[in-house]
Amino acid sequence: MDKKAILLIGDGVSATDLRYASGFSAPDNFIFMQSGSRKICAVSALEYNRALSSALPGVEVLRSNANSVETIRGIAAEWNIRTLVVPETFPVGLAEKLKAAGFALEIAACALFPEREFKSALEVEKITRSLRAAEAGCRRAIEILKASDIAPDRMLVWEGKPLTSEILRAEVDCTMLKLGMIAVDTICAGGLQGAQPHNTGSGVILADYPVVLDIFPRSAATGYWGDLTRTVVRGTPSEFMRRAYDAVLEAREFAKECIKIGAIPSEIHKCAENVLARHGFSTGCDEKGDYGFFHGLGHGVGLDIHELPRLNPRNSTPLKAGIVVTDEPGLYYPDQGGIRLEDMIYLNEAGEAITLTEMEDQFVI
Amino acid sequence: MDKKAILLIGDGVSATDLRYASGFSAPDNFIFMQSGSRKICAVSALEYNRALSSALPGVEVLRSNANSVETIRGIAAEWNIRTLVVPETFPVGLAEKLKAAGFALEIAACALFPEREFKSALEVEKITRSLRAAEAGCRRAIEILKASDIAPDRMLVWEGKPLTSEILRAEVDCTMLKLGMIAVDTICAGGLQGAQPHNTGSGVILADYPVVLDIFPRSAATGYWGDLTRTVVRGTPSEFMRRAYDAVLEAREFAKECIKIGAIPSEIHKCAENVLARHGFSTGCDEKGDYGFFHGLGHGVGLDIHELPRLNPRNSTPLKAGIVVTDEPGLYYPDQGGIRLEDMIYLNEAGEAITLTEMEDQFVI
Repeated sequence: MDKKAILLIGDGVSATDLRYASGFSAPDNFIFMQSGSRKICAVSALEYNRALSSALPGVEVLRSNANSVETIRGIAAEWNIRTLVVPETFPVGLAEKLKAAGFALEIAACALFPEREFKSALEVEKITRSLRAAEAGCRRAIEILKASDIAPDRMLVWEGKPLTSEILRAEVDCTMLKLGMIAVDTICAGGLQGAQPHNTGSGVILADYPVVLDIFPRSAATGYWGDLTRTVVRGTPSEFMRRAYDAVLEAREFAKECIKIGAIPSEIHKCAENVLARHGFSTGCDEKGDYGFFHGLGHGVGLDIHELPRLNPRNSTPLKAGIVVTDEPGLYYPDQGGIRLEDMIYLNEAGEAITLTEMEDQFVI
Repeated sequence: MDKKAILLIGDGVSATDLRYASGFSAPDNFIFMQSGSRKICAVSALEYNRALSSALPGVEVLRSNANSVETIRGIAAEWNIRTLVVPETFPVGLAEKLKAAGFALEIAACALFPEREFKSALEVEKITRSLRAAEAGCRRAIEILKASDIAPDRMLVWEGKPLTSEILRAEVDCTMLKLGMIAVDTICAGGLQGAQPHNTGSGVILADYPVVLDIFPRSAATGYWGDLTRTVVRGTPSEFMRRAYDAVLEAREFAKECIKIGAIPSEIHKCAENVLARHGFSTGCDEKGDYGFFHGLGHGVGLDIHELPRLNPRNSTPLKAGIVVTDEPGLYYPDQGGIRLEDMIYLNEAGEAITLTEMEDQFVI
């Protein structure tokens, strides 16, 4: 029978399957192969000692300065392998070279490590540590917003200077850095910027408008992410946004109750949408763009910030125990701003949905 | 004649060609196509407004929620394209789907945007701004090391607590964050850790041993990197490391003189190696691992931290005007620690090698 091996290449940061399977992470490309219970990491001389000390038990470490094809050929010859199973994201250039070298390539139609979706107690702990750092970052943001003065033109002023999204983000990120986290693209979006879910925010923050704080650090040591969103307002929000906040909070809490073993993600999303609709907040698109609740309710979190399972209108695969997901409904109106509230939920083996998030909810601060 | 289009997919952070060609950057995958002077970016609804405002002049922005194959097929049909030119890193899964959809795929053997190697004045300015932030980070590290006390066991103590690599890194990174930078894997490696060029450092920093500070922030706004290394020691270095420092400094300065239009990178590397050898520092490998100067002298810097041209023993392509490269010789001894000194050089149109780095050199602080 034709023996097969899984083949991965990339760096442990962007190619998280590599990190998951090998335990090792490096800024430069390295190779991982697995056939049955045999696992091997091939790294450059520069990374050899670090790889030896951080590779998971059972993962051999090979020091190789040959090119990728030669390295793979060497391992495959020893293991007697002709067919390589690669992920969809595998680089086509190397794929063609491997074919030319006589290998058969099989592109995996689904996840190579589907067990990644289901977290061990240790993984939940790592995620929770990153989430605690996100909470520390969020508290720092709120502390600064609270300490800010409101100038007559509604501009917030902190320590004598206009408070910008950039300043707020740097303070949040520094707080998390000191806790061993890496933070990129932290969202501190005030005013109408909050109506664009991916807008990280820029310029002076205004009073009376909601400020979306979406904070997602990755632990430098473990690679696991935390994810947290709170929306706060300094000053007096509009009646419309006050109602939107209450609706989103209720939607989040209601969705939490729906996260169960066997529950259908698309239906959980729909439940959250229904709560919002019941409060009078509908979703659609007009000449100003999308409005309402126009993103998925949540997503798995682990070594990737967005991983399986997706809690969105398209996922009909029943939930299983062991997942860690976000629950983050939102409402966005181009001429009003945005509200998003995000908790993280762990569905444990006993079927209990545990809220990992400890951060309090408070709109007007 | 068969019309061709360049096709890129990925996110603007990891796939820097995408950012270079489109001007746009997003956390999620998007598509870029170019045929002759026609250029288009296809993004999801979530990114459409941001893409519109940041895409380069001449780049059309298409809002597409279809899957990648459908989106590419739509654009190709309008442009009358059958052959797609993709980079070696293009995902093999999508490549196979495109072939199944009737496209011919050509894998580019070399850089799709070779002009990236040659920087405009504006790009040099962006790189220099990131370098200035690296210098600010480096000064912060030196300030903390200087302010530290040396405990009887040689441990450094800062503000009453043992000074660790982690604390030092967080202080460096925070300094840069406040200047709008993203910093990951900043190296603050003391003691014998400095002998591993990629070791970021961990645990308490000791006096009398060199501390390698390799600082490479990326601007959150522009995406361009800066790169700086200094090595300092608090206390009294060994005579061996003192001589190693002098040798590396001389090698760096000597190599600078060799960076000229038409110069051969492998020869510049060799020149630096010769300076080190003349000082009695040879390179090799023994039972303790690699020692001496065992990495390339330098590399291009731009939207990637490591890009063309490489100044290493294997590159024989003569240098051209417009490059920005690092010049970073080092010496590493497993039982002594490491020294690395890195400046950035811009080879301008007049053929002058301009040192962009302003940071001073000082070993014992």
